[in-house]
Amino acid sequence: MATTDRQRRALELAEAAGADCILAAAPHTVTWLTGYARSPMMADFPFFGPVVALLDGDGATLVVTEDEAEDAAACGCELVTYEGFTIGDIAVGAELRRAVQTMVAGRAVATETDSLPAALAPERCVDLAPELLRARAVKDDDEIERLRAAIAVTDAGQGAAREAALAGATEFDVYAAAVRAMQVAADDVIDVRGDLVSGPRTAEIGGPPGPRALEPADLVLADLVPRVGGYWGDSCATFAVEQLDRDAETAFERVESALAAVVEAIRPGARAADIDRLGRELLDYPHHTGHGLGVQPHEEPRVVPGSAWVLEPGMVIAVEPGLYADGFGIRLEQVVLVTEEGGELLSGHSLGRRR
Amino acid sequence: MATTDRQRRALELAEAAGADCILAAAPHTVTWLTGYARSPMMADFPFFGPVVALLDGDGATLVVTEDEAEDAAACGCELVTYEGFTIGDIAVGAELRRAVQTMVAGRAVATETDSLPAALAPERCVDLAPELLRARAVKDDDEIERLRAAIAVTDAGQGAAREAALAGATEFDVYAAAVRAMQVAADDVIDVRGDLVSGPRTAEIGGPPGPRALEPADLVLADLVPRVGGYWGDSCATFAVEQLDRDAETAFERVESALAAVVEAIRPGARAADIDRLGRELLDYPHHTGHGLGVQPHEEPRVVPGSAWVLEPGMVIAVEPGLYADGFGIRLEQVVLVTEEGGELLSGHSLGRRR
Repeated sequence: MATTDRQRRALELAEAAGADCILAAAPHTVTWLTGYARSPMMADFPFFGPVVALLDGDGATLVVTEDEAEDAAACGCELVTYEGFTIGDIAVGAELRRAVQTMVAGRAVATETDSLPAALAPERCVDLAPELLRARAVKDDDEIERLRAAIAVTDAGQGAAREAALAGATEFDVYAAAVRAMQVAADDVIDVRGDLVSGPRTAEIGGPPGPRALEPADLVLADLVPRVGGYWGDSCATFAVEQLDRDAETAFERVESALAAVVEAIRPGARAADIDRLGRELLDYPHHTGHGLGVQPHEEPRVVPGSAWVLEPGMVIAVEPGLYADGFGIRLEQVVLVTEEGGELLSGHSLGRRR
Repeated sequence: MATTDRQRRALELAEAAGADCILAAAPHTVTWLTGYARSPMMADFPFFGPVVALLDGDGATLVVTEDEAEDAAACGCELVTYEGFTIGDIAVGAELRRAVQTMVAGRAVATETDSLPAALAPERCVDLAPELLRARAVKDDDEIERLRAAIAVTDAGQGAAREAALAGATEFDVYAAAVRAMQVAADDVIDVRGDLVSGPRTAEIGGPPGPRALEPADLVLADLVPRVGGYWGDSCATFAVEQLDRDAETAFERVESALAAVVEAIRPGARAADIDRLGRELLDYPHHTGHGLGVQPHEEPRVVPGSAWVLEPGMVIAVEPGLYADGFGIRLEQVVLVTEEGGELLSGHSLGRRR
């Protein structure tokens, strides 16, 4: 039977939409409903179709390859498996279609039509993606534990980036050190997104690392976004390699104040639009003030102009005000859990202005 | 108009199936038809839908976000863009649906139903995925250049792995050094798949790196699979950290002989099944003898038992015989281009038995 709070909430949404089950195909929805997250090392090979999950009143069933059956079984779901890696003919498409057709035969199905492959779509189904996205905003306790773990991993990455950011090292070096530290902390090869830019590139808000060598007067902006067990960590720090000039000191003061103000504003009942306005009254940046964090690295509640979201306990929000000036940029980001009493800071990385 | 050999071949296949255009949705097919490969750093964020491409007699049109319009335009395709990153409402799904509906209205569409999201599927369309997969086996000249570049990147990774594999270093350290070197060589953050195992783990064929520290008598098995500009490199080396015992020396001789034999067998007119049999007569391994390499890390022609493929000039094939014994395993892999005259070795990494 449906055993987690979010499985029960999801099924209520499906029933309200006239369906008796949910066929999930977006990787993040599969993780959210079942806890299962496939290793990124399996991506792009032709042996492995998308992971699909069916949720109904009896609980969740995962459709996975035999290669991942052991890991998937640890989530406590029913499994339907197909061959996966083979030296014979690859028949993933046909096996997946057969498995899904058997599961949904005669059912009223809610699904995510933006993610579900056309070949797996039941003739009649209702799109539940917007409702599921909203339902993910409040986290269950086990999700909060997974987010704490992912944030501890990004903390480790920030520490390693700071250590590696010596004058003469390249952005690639700093990024490699951060990713290595995050894989050690996660004890796994993990997906990582984010930004790693230095010197004048920090004025451009973000971007991937490149061959640029760090100079003593550079700022380094590291926004690290690792996926650990299906849940995303996120953090941003900006720091000087060695020297910090007067303009940058003043700019740091402003960003630190803005970050403190928006972190302080995170509490139950606060409106996301008000938190966004507060950040923009203090600084002028072209991006969101913040966003929810979970099975996607950017989800509801988004802290943006015009948001209708009101914060509730169990929401997990990254806030990241920034200041982008002539020749340099600074962004600082922390993650906050909304609690009954207010907000609990989950991030533990250093925001020190110097390396 | 359709300007590359493969665009023309693809359209002929579509026409034979009764369609007048191809709606490509698998990332690898989009790359194959247009040359465009999205940065892995954009994955998983809600601002970016799948890249979709339409090919017809007038040429290819890419549907991408405004954030990637500049990179996509460099491929020489027509573009249809939608917003991408925003602090306003996220309407990716609706924008993609509208763009695709406009492009396919009134057309007879061939597509890949295993990849195309249900929300983007025309009411009537024919599945062309198996035909497109087969058509990718023979590479155009520009694809061979991209594969050479990807293989040069994996060569750089193998060199770095070997340098980093000192006694006391962990598998994570060796992997991080390899990935860093590949990103420097590619001048980009790239997706990497593969295996990095040491000591007794090499007997298990493969797996992700872990915290295991290398010992002087260990073997290290590094199978590195980077994606560079949308095309995959692939290579495997196995080497001793310091000492190599008599059993391992003998095993190395056998794997080196098998690799040389299958590399030598790659020439136009050779049957993939015969090359596979040749490898298995010399060694006993539970995986394929080899596989095509291109916009997927494993594609046709697969070198497996029962394959009906006959090699032709322009095919690019990775061969990787292995020997997995009690307590250790050895796998060696090289990539070969089938030419008019025979085979050209594309791999340049060391296969030395010691670090």
